[in-house]
Amino acid sequence: MRTQVGIIGAGPAGLLLSHLLHLQGIESVVLEARPREYVQGRVRAGILEQGTVDTLREAGVGKRLDAESIFQAGLNIRFGERTHRIDLVDLVGRGVTVYGQQEVVKDLIARRLDDGGDVRFGVADVRIENLGTPRISFVENGAGETLDCDFVIGADGFHGISRGQVPGLVHYEHTYPYAWLGILVEAPPSDPEVIYCRHERGFALHSMRSERVTRLYLQVDPDEDVANWPEDRIWSELHLRFTDVDGFELTEGRIFDKSITPMRSFVAAPMQHGRLFLAGDAAHIVPPTGAKGMNLAVADVRLLSRALGGFYYGNREDLLAAYTEKALKRVWRATHFSWWMTTTLHKAPSGAAIEQQLALSQLAFIASSRSQATALAENYTGLPYESGWSYR
Amino acid sequence: MRTQVGIIGAGPAGLLLSHLLHLQGIESVVLEARPREYVQGRVRAGILEQGTVDTLREAGVGKRLDAESIFQAGLNIRFGERTHRIDLVDLVGRGVTVYGQQEVVKDLIARRLDDGGDVRFGVADVRIENLGTPRISFVENGAGETLDCDFVIGADGFHGISRGQVPGLVHYEHTYPYAWLGILVEAPPSDPEVIYCRHERGFALHSMRSERVTRLYLQVDPDEDVANWPEDRIWSELHLRFTDVDGFELTEGRIFDKSITPMRSFVAAPMQHGRLFLAGDAAHIVPPTGAKGMNLAVADVRLLSRALGGFYYGNREDLLAAYTEKALKRVWRATHFSWWMTTTLHKAPSGAAIEQQLALSQLAFIASSRSQATALAENYTGLPYESGWSYR
Repeated sequence: MRTQVGIIGAGPAGLLLSHLLHLQGIESVVLEARPREYVQGRVRAGILEQGTVDTLREAGVGKRLDAESIFQAGLNIRFGERTHRIDLVDLVGRGVTVYGQQEVVKDLIARRLDDGGDVRFGVADVRIENLGTPRISFVENGAGETLDCDFVIGADGFHGISRGQVPGLVHYEHTYPYAWLGILVEAPPSDPEVIYCRHERGFALHSMRSERVTRLYLQVDPDEDVANWPEDRIWSELHLRFTDVDGFELTEGRIFDKSITPMRSFVAAPMQHGRLFLAGDAAHIVPPTGAKGMNLAVADVRLLSRALGGFYYGNREDLLAAYTEKALKRVWRATHFSWWMTTTLHKAPSGAAIEQQLALSQLAFIASSRSQATALAENYTGLPYESGWSYR
Repeated sequence: MRTQVGIIGAGPAGLLLSHLLHLQGIESVVLEARPREYVQGRVRAGILEQGTVDTLREAGVGKRLDAESIFQAGLNIRFGERTHRIDLVDLVGRGVTVYGQQEVVKDLIARRLDDGGDVRFGVADVRIENLGTPRISFVENGAGETLDCDFVIGADGFHGISRGQVPGLVHYEHTYPYAWLGILVEAPPSDPEVIYCRHERGFALHSMRSERVTRLYLQVDPDEDVANWPEDRIWSELHLRFTDVDGFELTEGRIFDKSITPMRSFVAAPMQHGRLFLAGDAAHIVPPTGAKGMNLAVADVRLLSRALGGFYYGNREDLLAAYTEKALKRVWRATHFSWWMTTTLHKAPSGAAIEQQLALSQLAFIASSRSQATALAENYTGLPYESGWSYR
C-alpha cells in the first residue's frame, strides 16, 4: 500500500492534517490504534483559540462548531475573595470558544470519511520500519500490512511510538506537585464565563461544555485516586473554594464523568528527523491551565500542511527544514504561558509562604495593570500565525 | 532628652523621613551606629524611580541630583546574542535616573545638618527600652543617654535591632542560588544605557554611576570569595558574557571597588507595632536586579511622613494604623517584580534545561509584545504613589 503522507494517530493533529492536505490535493492515510468510538469519546481540552476556530472554519469543518460552541468574550480570575474579569475582546479584539476536543475530532472524522479519506481505526502494532524510503508497518484485522509513503507524521500523542524514532532528541520536562480532578456535570454553567480560582485550599476552575453541561476542576495531590472523591466530597470542596463572592452560586447536578489529569510540561526537540515530523502531544505537553494543548496541535499541522504543500507544489524543501524552528517558537511561548498560569494559580503543597504572596501580588497586578492583563489576553486567545496553512 | 519622632538609622529611609518631618514642622532625632564617613561611603543601589526623583526634588534636596545624575529613557535586555531595547519613556512616559544611593545620603545629611537637624553618628548600643511610652537608650561618647519620643522609627536596615521588637512578626524569605560580583570602574560607560544580559555562563549587568564611572556586575556563586576574582579574570568573564553584539565593545578601566552582593527576597509583616514603625531594609529586602531597594525605602517614608503629619495636625490615628497594609501593597509588587527579573535573567546553577528555555521564551515575549514590555516598564520606573508625603 502506498500514499504520499502516512499519518500515525487520529487525534486532532493527525485528522486535521489529513484534511488540510486533502484540501491541497495531497493524499494521506491515517493509522489509529484505538477504535473510532474511543477516539470520539475521549474527554480532553475544550477551549479553542480564535486562530483554531478560524482554521477549522476556513477548512470547512466549522459548521457544527458555529452552531453549538459558546464564545467567551472574557475570563475571570478569582483570588483573595474577589473576582477580576479580563475582558479579552476589549483588550485584544478576540476571545476564545468553548467546544470540546472530542467534538472537533467527531467533525474531522465525519468529514474525512465523507471525502473518501483513508482513516483506519483499531490497527495494531504500528511501526516505522524505515525513514530513508519511509515505510510504516501495522496489523489490521489480524493481517500484517505495510504503508509506503513520502513522509511520516508522528501525531500519536505523548505515549506514541514516533518520538522514539528521532535520534539525539532533547527532552525538556517539568512535573507539577498537583493534578486536576475534573468532573462533567449535568447542570447549566453557574456563570456564563470561565472562572480561574486561586484559593488557600488549592486551585479550582469553573468551565462549561455547553449550555447544559458544566465542567469543574479541583487541584488535588498528583497521586490522588479518583475513588477517594465521592460526589459529596467533590461538591463540598468545590463550595469551599468557590466561596460566595459577588453573589456567585455554584449550581450542582449529576456528575457523569470524573477523571484525574496529571500536570506536566514537556517539550521534545527537534520535532523532525529526515522524512519524519512530529506534531501535537507527540512532541509537547502543557498542563491544562492555559488551555493550549489542542491549539498547539492545530498550529503544528498548519505549518506541516503548508510545508508539505511547498514540497509537492513548489519543489521546496526549505519549509520542511524550518519546521522545528518555527513550531518551537510557538510551543515555547505556550509552554511558558501554561507554566506561568499554572504556578500563579495553584498552591504548591510544600511551597514557602513567600510563594503564596508572590503569586497573589502577580494576580493583583494583572487586576490593576491593563498592560499585564493584555499580555495575558494575547497569550490566552493565541498569538497570530506567521502564515497560512495552504501553500497556494 | 526628648523629641517627637526617634529614628534609628541614618540610611536613605531614616534621613529622608527626618527631613520630610522637618518640612512639616515635626521634630526628630536620628541615631546611627556608624560614623558619618562610613555611611556616606557605602556603595549601594544606583537607580532611582521617577517618583523617588520627584520626591527628592519636592523636598528641596534635588539640586545636585539634577546636576549630576544621568537620566535613562530606556533599558536594554540582551539574550540569545541579541539586544532588545525597552523604550521606557515611549511605553509609560517616564524613565529612571542613575544617581548613587550614597550621593542621596550625602545630600540628605548635608541638608539635615544645614537645617539644624539632630543626626548623631557613631552612637553605640541603641536599644528600644519601652514602646508604651517610647524610649530609646544609646551610648554616645562613652555616656549612656535616653531619648523619649512619641514614635520610634526602625530604619536600621536588615541587620538592625528594631524588627525584633515587633511581636508575632511573620518572615517571608527566599534566597537565590547566586550572588553578584560588582565592580566600579574608572571608565566611561560602554553604552549610554543599562544592559541586562542573560548568558549561558550567567547573568551580567552593565550600568554606570557617572559619565566617567562604569558599574559592572557578574553572576557568581552565592558563597564566592571576592579574592578569587583578580582583575584579569573579571575582565575575561565580562567579555565572554558581553559578547560583541551589534558592535558593542566593553571599555576596560581601573577597578576601584569590588564587592559581592548576596541575593535575597525578604519581607517582614506587620511593619508596625504600637508606636514602632519599620521602614526600608529593616522590613524588606529585594535582590538588586529590579533596582527597587532604595525606591521602596522612599515609598515607605512617604507614607510615614504623611501618617505622622496626620497624627500631629489632624489628630488622626487611622493613617498610622493603615501603614502596614498600604506599604505592603507596594512592597509585594516590588518583591514580585524583583523576583521575576532575577529568575528571568539569571541562570540557576542546578536548574533543569526547561528553565533556561522558559526564561528565554519570556524574554522573547518581552521583546515581541508591547503589552509585556509595558508591564515591565510600569514596574521598573515605579508605580504611582497613592498620596503625597505631606499631610497638609
